[in-house]
Amino acid sequence: MADIPYKTYLSEDELPKAWYNIRADMKKKPAPLLNPATLKPVAAEELERVFCRECVKQELDDETPLIPIPKAVHDFYRMYRPSPLVRAYFLEKALGTPAKIYYKFEGNNTSGSHKLNSAIAQAYYAKAQGLTDVTTETGAGQWGTALSMASAFFGLKCHVFMVKCSYEQKPFRREVMRTYGADVTPSPSMTTKIGREINERFPGTNGSLGCAISEAVEKATGMPNARYLLGSVLNQVCLHQSIIGLESKAALDRLGVRPDVIIGCAGGGSNLAGLIAPFMGEKLRGENDYRIVAVEPSSCPSFTRGRYAYDFCDTGRVCPLQKMYTLGSSFIPSPSHAGGLRYHGMSALLSELYDQGLMEAKSVEQTSVFEAATLFARTEGTLPAPESAHAIRAAVDEALECKAAGREETILFGLTGTGYFDMVAYGRYNDGEMKDCIPTDDDLAAGFAALPKV
Amino acid sequence: MADIPYKTYLSEDELPKAWYNIRADMKKKPAPLLNPATLKPVAAEELERVFCRECVKQELDDETPLIPIPKAVHDFYRMYRPSPLVRAYFLEKALGTPAKIYYKFEGNNTSGSHKLNSAIAQAYYAKAQGLTDVTTETGAGQWGTALSMASAFFGLKCHVFMVKCSYEQKPFRREVMRTYGADVTPSPSMTTKIGREINERFPGTNGSLGCAISEAVEKATGMPNARYLLGSVLNQVCLHQSIIGLESKAALDRLGVRPDVIIGCAGGGSNLAGLIAPFMGEKLRGENDYRIVAVEPSSCPSFTRGRYAYDFCDTGRVCPLQKMYTLGSSFIPSPSHAGGLRYHGMSALLSELYDQGLMEAKSVEQTSVFEAATLFARTEGTLPAPESAHAIRAAVDEALECKAAGREETILFGLTGTGYFDMVAYGRYNDGEMKDCIPTDDDLAAGFAALPKV
Repeated sequence: MADIPYKTYLSEDELPKAWYNIRADMKKKPAPLLNPATLKPVAAEELERVFCRECVKQELDDETPLIPIPKAVHDFYRMYRPSPLVRAYFLEKALGTPAKIYYKFEGNNTSGSHKLNSAIAQAYYAKAQGLTDVTTETGAGQWGTALSMASAFFGLKCHVFMVKCSYEQKPFRREVMRTYGADVTPSPSMTTKIGREINERFPGTNGSLGCAISEAVEKATGMPNARYLLGSVLNQVCLHQSIIGLESKAALDRLGVRPDVIIGCAGGGSNLAGLIAPFMGEKLRGENDYRIVAVEPSSCPSFTRGRYAYDFCDTGRVCPLQKMYTLGSSFIPSPSHAGGLRYHGMSALLSELYDQGLMEAKSVEQTSVFEAATLFARTEGTLPAPESAHAIRAAVDEALECKAAGREETILFGLTGTGYFDMVAYGRYNDGEMKDCIPTDDDLAAGFAALPKV
Repeated sequence: MADIPYKTYLSEDELPKAWYNIRADMKKKPAPLLNPATLKPVAAEELERVFCRECVKQELDDETPLIPIPKAVHDFYRMYRPSPLVRAYFLEKALGTPAKIYYKFEGNNTSGSHKLNSAIAQAYYAKAQGLTDVTTETGAGQWGTALSMASAFFGLKCHVFMVKCSYEQKPFRREVMRTYGADVTPSPSMTTKIGREINERFPGTNGSLGCAISEAVEKATGMPNARYLLGSVLNQVCLHQSIIGLESKAALDRLGVRPDVIIGCAGGGSNLAGLIAPFMGEKLRGENDYRIVAVEPSSCPSFTRGRYAYDFCDTGRVCPLQKMYTLGSSFIPSPSHAGGLRYHGMSALLSELYDQGLMEAKSVEQTSVFEAATLFARTEGTLPAPESAHAIRAAVDEALECKAAGREETILFGLTGTGYFDMVAYGRYNDGEMKDCIPTDDDLAAGFAALPKV
């Protein structure tokens, strides 16, 4: 156990100075966002009504490989980054596997996840543009917490629409956001036109990220000095999250380790896009090859059972159309506990990479995810977020296959966050009351039928 | 901001190989534990009925300065240690102080605090002795979580008595412990003789650490292969926690920084004893001088308003007598939210150091503690535990005094943990409903009157 430490920390001097934009190395780029009325690519000016100017620029930039991290963002990063790359010695031992397991741990900050990496960037650009307010949605609550923290840091007022089932399961999440000065509204709410409509169409709905996005966009566009910030899915978010992969690669390079397979959970896709960024870059440039695996919940299987098609990013259909793997913007997943993975679609960037055969995808069931989470907590110490535990499940399965085959593989997975606010879900699992919730083909057919005709 | 990094991590090779025992350098040692029946110093054999053998040895060892850390414990430490020493640049900036503020952050592990440092050591010794079960009490829940983690790691069954007011305020703490395989009982319970008696004497009581200790001891001594493990107060715990101070000192030495004042919160005293250990060692040996400040809640002011006297460590009066600053073992503090600081007494080691004038103490009120906690969360990112925030309050006050006096002081404080399970308390503060709860002189007189006559 001596050669490779448990945890590898880069020094703050080694913290990357620029984000890496995967799109620059893609021959076939992700399809452009379309205006749903004209079906033409949306112009920057249109997007700037909703998003911050600099974020729009990053969203549309398919060419620049390295985009400098502003100094204020870099300084903030230094409070909690570089994050550790951990060798999971105790998990390996518990599994009796010849595989070597590494994970990049993004949970060592109060937001509890990687979300802070993009939140602080977006809040910085909002402040730099002279805005006073920002709005957003949150599923599991990690993005809302991250943006509340980032907003407090730059003195912005943050308005969060929180998916109702998470709001109810995670009362203390709301309190963390309030401690950072944010206001938090359960979604769908009666405070927006879209929210009222959704409540009327689906009485008693548990909400979804798609609904909450619609409400947050409506709120932002109804205020003079506000914009909407999104925590996943978008190119800009994948870009900011590349810090995860850049640090992972630098740490592995320092150790002289090359991963065979890279595994991440996928909801909107930003953590996975970030984790794989430099590895995928090498793959795209033909310099190296890696297996890359996206893991999604079988309750919301956009990669493994979805369609690659233009769709709305939100349930209220106020956002542009994006070409992505999707279950249809009207698909509302059952109230699975991995709130952060309950999005009907998937990052356009990852969708295109997946469609080009550059990565794999698999879905896993909730009870098996919590089983892996508990094993991980007891061996590696850290209590993982249910979202992150999807990646653990897949990494454990991979390691067990290695054991069966006597294969000495090196596995890297992303441990995106901690589960301290997910104890209702853990409680159900501990009490044997957790159920898997897999949509039927009929459930999916309804979502597909409602896809826009493009 | 460039010379000194935000976070200084020692490498795993630099992780101390031995704990430091302050008592070895004290000319006048802490007073011995007494058998309450005979009023004679308790023998090792008597203590071994309650505690693990090796822990008893450490408890009574006033002479050995360095006690080796067992390899299995050291390996476990490497999962989450060395912990970072952080320069609080953003807090300094927010305060506009010329003071330089450093904090040692112990919250980056799932137990959420420094408690894991002693839990893993004690669980190791229990396992090595061939035990199957361990019992303990928990106030804020951090020690209970830490011991649950440590027990899971070594395959021990852990029984936790959780102070009732914390049990009710922190439902998810219980779930974390259960996830690690522990069973958790609110205290005072009806499952022990002592618990039933306390419930009868104080109907509707919120409980206290003193009660919960009594129950856990009764439970341990009633099982064949079990011992009781305690998370604070005892010499052995202070010893294990010296890892905090040893790492802090090594990191500061690397940076070439000498702290002028060292500040820590004090409940039972173990984190403070651990943080100050090597500094106090230098002070005792006449090699260096530091101001050392213990911060306690004004709701439970054992140092600042207590008596230095022999007293029971527990409310049920089943434990040995210890000479310490105490409010009396019958003192039950109002249900202040800093559950971890609600102990009627104080470490005998710290009590003796305080009595010898080697350290200072101050008490702070809860609302001002949460004010400091919120400022800290918004500037430094991390949401602190209410217990830890007592140290933040004192550090902020010190830094503001430096500002008023134009004094460029270097402050080191211990940030013992995170507040993710304390959101009921934060919620009350956010809603303006938090009250300070300071005992009257009459409240204290009753506790003092019940002190044993020694």
